Amino acid sequence: MTIHRKEAIAEWFKGLQDSICKALEDTDGKGKFEQDVWEREGGGGGRSRVLTEGNIIEKGGVNFSAVFGATPPKILEALRLEQADFFATGVSIVLHPHNPFVPIIHMNVRYFEMTNGTWWFGGGIDLTPHYVEKEDAHWFHQHLKNVCDKHDPNFYPKFKTWADDYFYIKHRQETRGIGGIFFDHLNDNSGVPFEKGWAFVQAVGSAFAPIYTYFMQKNKAIAYTEKEKQWQYLRRGRYVEFNLVYDKGTKFGLDTDGRTESILMSLPPQANWVYSFQTQPATREAATLDLLKKGINWA
Amino acid sequence: MTIHRKEAIAEWFKGLQDSICKALEDTDGKGKFEQDVWEREGGGGGRSRVLTEGNIIEKGGVNFSAVFGATPPKILEALRLEQADFFATGVSIVLHPHNPFVPIIHMNVRYFEMTNGTWWFGGGIDLTPHYVEKEDAHWFHQHLKNVCDKHDPNFYPKFKTWADDYFYIKHRQETRGIGGIFFDHLNDNSGVPFEKGWAFVQAVGSAFAPIYTYFMQKNKAIAYTEKEKQWQYLRRGRYVEFNLVYDKGTKFGLDTDGRTESILMSLPPQANWVYSFQTQPATREAATLDLLKKGINWA
Repeated sequence: MTIHRKEAIAEWFKGLQDSICKALEDTDGKGKFEQDVWEREGGGGGRSRVLTEGNIIEKGGVNFSAVFGATPPKILEALRLEQADFFATGVSIVLHPHNPFVPIIHMNVRYFEMTNGTWWFGGGIDLTPHYVEKEDAHWFHQHLKNVCDKHDPNFYPKFKTWADDYFYIKHRQETRGIGGIFFDHLNDNSGVPFEKGWAFVQAVGSAFAPIYTYFMQKNKAIAYTEKEKQWQYLRRGRYVEFNLVYDKGTKFGLDTDGRTESILMSLPPQANWVYSFQTQPATREAATLDLLKKGINWA
Repeated sequence: MTIHRKEAIAEWFKGLQDSICKALEDTDGKGKFEQDVWEREGGGGGRSRVLTEGNIIEKGGVNFSAVFGATPPKILEALRLEQADFFATGVSIVLHPHNPFVPIIHMNVRYFEMTNGTWWFGGGIDLTPHYVEKEDAHWFHQHLKNVCDKHDPNFYPKFKTWADDYFYIKHRQETRGIGGIFFDHLNDNSGVPFEKGWAFVQAVGSAFAPIYTYFMQKNKAIAYTEKEKQWQYLRRGRYVEFNLVYDKGTKFGLDTDGRTESILMSLPPQANWVYSFQTQPATREAATLDLLKKGINWA
């Protein structure tokens, strides 16, 4: 039973990668994903797909992986286990658009299990607009809330708060963007039986393409200035800081000798740093910084 | 005695910051350092100096700090101490030049002591050329070796190896640059009495300006192509990866709520990431990657 289960999940994730890549290519109208198939020395592998220099997407990755083998010592320690094999599969996405008025988006859906019977689902979708537009933020969170509410009325409030806490750049005292939903360790122990967790993760994965293609189409033609492009480069610098300093997925990948180019596909094509950059009062940049805070009720 | 000692060291470091800034401004011919004086909530503070858009230096920082207060829990744990106050002072430098044929340089000299009587010196100078030129690498290491040899014949081999191991980007299997010297915890316990350690640290600090102004003057006018500038942006991306993922000083600073803009002055003005970038065979870029390895005997 367990064997069929994990294989079925991995197959579904592969299909999700296919359908998301197609939707993004169709909406972009120019960029095509290039695929690298890779194998992991300890077991398993993945399909990394990266699109660069599209009409709308400047650089983006949609990665699938299914890896297995001896559980890394850090996880064994955390779970107080002597030995167990693991299996992990998921889809990870980060997209950096050309236009600073199109947001950066990140999605991850994943399933983890071990030979001792432990299993869980994790994932989420979060948005990092270079300029926070309240209507867009509301639309995004309302959309995620609708997806969550179909499965459990407690999911959205819980996972929204989790995202606020997780996507926080402590040394900047800023959230990475406007958050979204983040969840991990969904299983029986956290009150989520397998069928419920799996249905929810599928719903989150399926919500990605409609959400992002909406923003691509709506905002792709908004005119922007060189100053606004420079602001985008600074915000991408913050994205780099979060991913390299705090992101657990990135840390775990680098610590466990994952495929570096697949892990770091999340980094932007270009990021800038300006010492002690200050926004001018009453500008869109200043308004954005004011909204990069935890606990805003966007939905 | 101890009080006079730490104050004298801090004063000397301040003077070092002054003389290095002057030498860099004189050689650059255009850029001027702007100073931010800051205070630390728990005690002490610093003078951050950043130069941007010079003739030769695109962005660089020369920071002095002297901070004191309750020792951070992580250090207490490592030293198995219940409680102690600390005092730390140092000068930290990172310079990013415009011209890809001028190397990035980093220097740090520091002194640390605690109220339980523990003290040590640390520091080093290392070079990150975007293009490794063997003659320049030899000159740099020979210069450092000469500085070291005047104090102890064991210093250079030991500290050169330490730099190779420290400035290593594990997930890229590359060294950050061509290394240099790195040392930490120099004190009686490691066979270095105070007077010897202090004289050595002063010699390292004093070696910085002659070394870097040599490279500034020698390489500033070398013509470069757009392709070479793009390569510089990629190498700066690696610099960002090292500093945010591995550098202990950066981690310590961010963990202990240090002044973020001073800590992250090390980040370049612009860095780029290209997915799965491959160098072409028999190019200067490929030759450089071949030399970003531990254990090369440059001196």
